[in-house]
Amino acid sequence: MFKKILVANRGEIALRVIRACSEMGIKSVAVYSTADKNSLHVKFADEAVCIGPAPSPQSYLDIQRIIAAAEITNSDAIHPGYGFLAENDKFSKICEENNIKFIGADAEMILGMGDKATAKATMKAAGVPTIPGSDGLLDSVQQGLEVAEVVGYPVILKATAGGGGRGMRIVNEPSEFQKAWDSARQEAGAAFGNDGMYLEKFVVEPRHVEIQVLGDAHGNAFHLSERDCSIQRRHQKLVEETPSPALTPEIREKMGAAAIAGAKAINYEGAGTVEFLLDKYGDFYFMEMNTRIQVEHPVTEEATDVDLIKEQIKAAAGVELTVGNQEPQMCVMECRINAEDPANDFRPSPGKIESLHFPGGLGVRVDSHVYAGYVIPPNYDSMIAKLIVKAPTREEVVTRMKRALKEFVIEGIKTTIPFHLKLMDNEQFKSGDFTTKFLDENSYETL
Amino acid sequence: MFKKILVANRGEIALRVIRACSEMGIKSVAVYSTADKNSLHVKFADEAVCIGPAPSPQSYLDIQRIIAAAEITNSDAIHPGYGFLAENDKFSKICEENNIKFIGADAEMILGMGDKATAKATMKAAGVPTIPGSDGLLDSVQQGLEVAEVVGYPVILKATAGGGGRGMRIVNEPSEFQKAWDSARQEAGAAFGNDGMYLEKFVVEPRHVEIQVLGDAHGNAFHLSERDCSIQRRHQKLVEETPSPALTPEIREKMGAAAIAGAKAINYEGAGTVEFLLDKYGDFYFMEMNTRIQVEHPVTEEATDVDLIKEQIKAAAGVELTVGNQEPQMCVMECRINAEDPANDFRPSPGKIESLHFPGGLGVRVDSHVYAGYVIPPNYDSMIAKLIVKAPTREEVVTRMKRALKEFVIEGIKTTIPFHLKLMDNEQFKSGDFTTKFLDENSYETL
Repeated sequence: MFKKILVANRGEIALRVIRACSEMGIKSVAVYSTADKNSLHVKFADEAVCIGPAPSPQSYLDIQRIIAAAEITNSDAIHPGYGFLAENDKFSKICEENNIKFIGADAEMILGMGDKATAKATMKAAGVPTIPGSDGLLDSVQQGLEVAEVVGYPVILKATAGGGGRGMRIVNEPSEFQKAWDSARQEAGAAFGNDGMYLEKFVVEPRHVEIQVLGDAHGNAFHLSERDCSIQRRHQKLVEETPSPALTPEIREKMGAAAIAGAKAINYEGAGTVEFLLDKYGDFYFMEMNTRIQVEHPVTEEATDVDLIKEQIKAAAGVELTVGNQEPQMCVMECRINAEDPANDFRPSPGKIESLHFPGGLGVRVDSHVYAGYVIPPNYDSMIAKLIVKAPTREEVVTRMKRALKEFVIEGIKTTIPFHLKLMDNEQFKSGDFTTKFLDENSYETL
Repeated sequence: MFKKILVANRGEIALRVIRACSEMGIKSVAVYSTADKNSLHVKFADEAVCIGPAPSPQSYLDIQRIIAAAEITNSDAIHPGYGFLAENDKFSKICEENNIKFIGADAEMILGMGDKATAKATMKAAGVPTIPGSDGLLDSVQQGLEVAEVVGYPVILKATAGGGGRGMRIVNEPSEFQKAWDSARQEAGAAFGNDGMYLEKFVVEPRHVEIQVLGDAHGNAFHLSERDCSIQRRHQKLVEETPSPALTPEIREKMGAAAIAGAKAINYEGAGTVEFLLDKYGDFYFMEMNTRIQVEHPVTEEATDVDLIKEQIKAAAGVELTVGNQEPQMCVMECRINAEDPANDFRPSPGKIESLHFPGGLGVRVDSHVYAGYVIPPNYDSMIAKLIVKAPTREEVVTRMKRALKEFVIEGIKTTIPFHLKLMDNEQFKSGDFTTKFLDENSYETL
């Protein structure tokens, strides 16, 4: 087992990893920017090294400084957390070249899963359902009509150089095809100087459902069931839960098997997530694979009693994992508490936390790096706490979450707590029947 | 279901009940003494009624004031918590007479289990193992020798009027009997003016192991396995855990069955605890039954995912319980964090909490009514928080508890946190091999 792990991250995930190290008898090293010198991850680690000023390229993204910090502290492994360098192939490779174990995927796997086309092809070859569509670019409307006939309407035309929704058109039936093709190409050509188009089946009323996987160097790959992350605002997850209200045991089994097939196909080691779009017919399609721990991993931990960070560390150390596949034993929900003002378009609200009191009691977990008197720096993402609640039923989770949100006292800054309180009272949310469009269709004010 | 519950208690247990009410959609009423006006239980309840000054007889023990508070707030039930009026037969009866449901045992049951001789006879008749001994007082040394021969040595001679260890003698073999008899009688006569003696088998190296039971008005009685409470200082529990390091599955099954037999014999309704002494041979004997919720109930909640307060409320409302018998699914330990100075003979340390930060993360639960800036009044018991930790193995519980204790920041007063930290490093404690004498044999300094 490792003797000392450097945690190349900040905030709650740095603290999460430091806690796991402490419980495993492994020494921990925090790195921090000058803006983070008073953060709890610095206080709770066994050692701490300042790696530069606040802008991330000069500290948390500066590979040389982090490697240097690992070397001067004699760390034998680096945990990258999520974000920053967690899926940076160069960093993974440089760690390896310096004989420091990177607790994550190797460079090749990061590249393979980071390139969306390669990842989709790999998963398709492994038998994982992917969104059907054209193989590469379309030559003509006629070819597009033929592909659409095969995959079934509605389909979506996408500009290969596209982004931000431009050069994309939904086509509901053949008669709409020509018009959509012309306008999408024109828009793409004007916007990107490239009017190449491809086509995919359009997933109707999708939910974002992801499967947690764990693999090891001994050929084992397990799935720990799903997290439903359909509550998103501008692609930012705000609430995650398990079990997904949309999953039957049969879909869970199929989706879990697909995730394991994907993980085995690439000999995946450590903790990873296979993300799927689930349509209203119960069909699901591979979106992407994240080769790292995720923000919402505690949802799975609380539902299965598996410590994912410890398993991740064990896998990196070459230990054979024995957790097996896991079904959710409890209903679990996580609310991300961000320093943002929901009444002001979720504008960031950094500043000093004047007073703070976390909720407690049965079924309530708080993962947070902040404390009373802490000044939230404006330099980083705005998440300040994760409130994770569990109970035997989803209905009880919602009432318990409301109770915990009401107990959560935080003064001096604005937070997303009022948003979550409104969400927990929203009838559609409570019904469990919603898609990833839910927060596009409902503003904070109209929830 | 009840519409409004008055919580006739203070501190963390009042908060615990208020949280359950909130989650069940039941309105809650806090009562408080003037010394408690800033306590969290007052802030978190839907209503709050001041019932008098700090001394408990003028507030938390004043039945008339509490009944009046229930009537003016139109409460249809009262939850007594633990301590204060929780096992007061008169209070239970007066609630009943006022058509307010007492969420606890009825007067007859409280009296029956409160009188130790009656309780022992009742349990013996129900087939629950009790400590064998003389039926009532001994006439002579000869009779004592005969009884001792039947129950087996060592035995203990006890003065019927005794207390505080006086008039008690352990007898290891027949040759010691006459001398022990003479000196115990002499001591008892001098101390109490009554030299009547009875005899019991002396339980060697006992552990305190108790079984949580739940009963309802439909004739159901379930056991939720054990809590080991052997870590006591002067009969005050400091640490409780499940599973007991001393229980085999066979003993657990027997002890659970005995507890259910006892509960069924008295048609027990609600949450109760049957306490046993477990000897080093694996034999156990009924000590007493507590007809209320206990301080250490979260240990069972975390091990079984059953919300005991909700079950207790449901049972009181006449709902049929369906939890079934429960085995511990996880290892769970609770440390009582008291405002006491362990380095100064555990002297109470009331006063203002200058700063406070609770531990968090995976497997950590905090039940507490205090917050930064709160002034702990000198009038009540010194428990300020319960730190409950769970993990798949006892070894991991201990390392996680250490991690959580180290994170627990509380400034301005002394607490038992340093004691618990020493305990978690003590080899004998870590081995699980200890008896109720452990803290008599080990002081804070020598741990």
